[in-house]
Amino acid sequence: MTSSREVRLKQRPVGLPTEADFDLATVEVGAPADGEVLVKNLYMSVDPYMRGRMTDRPSYVPPFEIGAALQGGAVGEVVASNADGFKPGDIVSSMFGWREAFTADAKQLQKLETHGLPVQAFLGVAGMPGLTAYVGLTRVAEMKAGDIVFVSAAAGAVGQVACQVARLKGCTVIGSAGGPEKAAFLREIGVDQVIDYKAEPDLKAALKRAAPKGVDVYFENVGGAHLEAALDSARVNGRFAMCGMISLYNDEKPEPGPSNLALVIGKRLRLQGFIVSDHFDLAPQFLAELSGWIESGQFHYRETVDEGIAAAPAAFLKLFTGENFGKMLVKLA
Amino acid sequence: MTSSREVRLKQRPVGLPTEADFDLATVEVGAPADGEVLVKNLYMSVDPYMRGRMTDRPSYVPPFEIGAALQGGAVGEVVASNADGFKPGDIVSSMFGWREAFTADAKQLQKLETHGLPVQAFLGVAGMPGLTAYVGLTRVAEMKAGDIVFVSAAAGAVGQVACQVARLKGCTVIGSAGGPEKAAFLREIGVDQVIDYKAEPDLKAALKRAAPKGVDVYFENVGGAHLEAALDSARVNGRFAMCGMISLYNDEKPEPGPSNLALVIGKRLRLQGFIVSDHFDLAPQFLAELSGWIESGQFHYRETVDEGIAAAPAAFLKLFTGENFGKMLVKLA
Repeated sequence: MTSSREVRLKQRPVGLPTEADFDLATVEVGAPADGEVLVKNLYMSVDPYMRGRMTDRPSYVPPFEIGAALQGGAVGEVVASNADGFKPGDIVSSMFGWREAFTADAKQLQKLETHGLPVQAFLGVAGMPGLTAYVGLTRVAEMKAGDIVFVSAAAGAVGQVACQVARLKGCTVIGSAGGPEKAAFLREIGVDQVIDYKAEPDLKAALKRAAPKGVDVYFENVGGAHLEAALDSARVNGRFAMCGMISLYNDEKPEPGPSNLALVIGKRLRLQGFIVSDHFDLAPQFLAELSGWIESGQFHYRETVDEGIAAAPAAFLKLFTGENFGKMLVKLA
Repeated sequence: MTSSREVRLKQRPVGLPTEADFDLATVEVGAPADGEVLVKNLYMSVDPYMRGRMTDRPSYVPPFEIGAALQGGAVGEVVASNADGFKPGDIVSSMFGWREAFTADAKQLQKLETHGLPVQAFLGVAGMPGLTAYVGLTRVAEMKAGDIVFVSAAAGAVGQVACQVARLKGCTVIGSAGGPEKAAFLREIGVDQVIDYKAEPDLKAALKRAAPKGVDVYFENVGGAHLEAALDSARVNGRFAMCGMISLYNDEKPEPGPSNLALVIGKRLRLQGFIVSDHFDLAPQFLAELSGWIESGQFHYRETVDEGIAAAPAAFLKLFTGENFGKMLVKLA
């Protein structure tokens, strides 16, 4: 028997979650039965979309259950295997995050080919957030060389990849992030025009200065004032990849939408929502391009890593205060 | 010389226009010079999009000039011609509405093949409004047989065509309009579920009752509460053809947008703005289908016709109070 600590949902958060909404519990993890594998997690992911699952409402993924361990992306190492194709030492990714160890059917695990990347990259730049950026630009927004691309939350897990995919594919990139440190990072990774939105009293005006010719593609991570500014600066036939609206996730009552949404008509804009899991077919193409860019030194990324399962709720909360920098991870072993 | 009365923009309206914003003037129209044609207008069109041109701001068409005659769709009869291919008695359409007669370069006129339809149909069901409905559903929203289609302003010039194109192409149609008379008309033309929005305290709930399985395609003419209800009822992969937002056109300050816009993400919705003039290539296909439907008695339409150029401003204002029924026209001769 292996002992594992896990984070459970204690109660559904109202507004911004707090640590009191979570419980830390210890469970015993059994030996793997036929077809099962015992995994010790190395890293777990915290992601904005998890906030939605903490509320009990219909969505594209079912809500978390109160009193049960949370779920989410994790990478781990096989400790014991009773399944064909898995042996101790193998590195696997799964959705059994928020816990130190687990036993599961081998079908729920994916063996990782690391392409020379550190394992935790498969929770960030080379994982779901990275693929989200790639899918959003290349398939959803149909970005082409020469486009002017605006990325919000540009120093985040998805945003930092979006900025660099756009740059490497021949686009002009405008990125917005909060604070001078993130702004400096965006300049380092080759963003052409950086907006520190916390230092800008008028985001619409700031975007007009950063993109005087307007914006062809908007990668939407934030909502609110960012979406309104993007609508204002959009060029005719602009495409918006609608990925997330983190500014709204903790609202207790619905906030009004952009007052300039009617611009979609005259400007013939396309706002297209998407979920990365509909587009996993692009993963091999993305990993091939990404590993090439990383090897040749053209691609950079940042992570924020907190330590230990007990720190996971606080790491999750950092997503909403913007304290994370790039992909937010928790190192478990 | 021919005498012609014309309606001019006296001042830019603030909020809802009033008759005081317009002037009626009389001008003399000269004989046609080389390559020109003298036309007597039979009918002119008033359309919601004209409200935008009365405000001085950048848009897809330039603003009307103060002191000059307004412009808009008209059909008329050639009185005198000095141009090849045009002879007295020919029926032509032009953008020289809001006046009784005019002389213009023949290149600015289009000779009408009436397909057995009354000439004024080419300002409505068989003209720009009809083509707008057809383009929005078939090309922009990629409507397919079996879709559940929601049309707002369904008894209007565009809406009545949209409802019938959807029905004739094998879709379930939900239409909203204001008042029992319009609701009865929608039932007559085969709309499956009719919402009288003026009688509904909660439009979201009304749409949920009318479309318990949700909505695949939304034809947006109204904005505001209609858009919010459509977002709420949209099914996964729903497509919104964003044609107009008449509820907002007279706002003096921007009204907030829908508070549930974030639903576009999880539901993977596509909101696509469009302008009919980008899609004139579909006109022959549309006219062929429409004339077939009308001949076989499968298609019905309504017009509201006011008389005389002096009545044109009041006819235009009816668009915003919903007093018109189907296409709003002014008969000039």
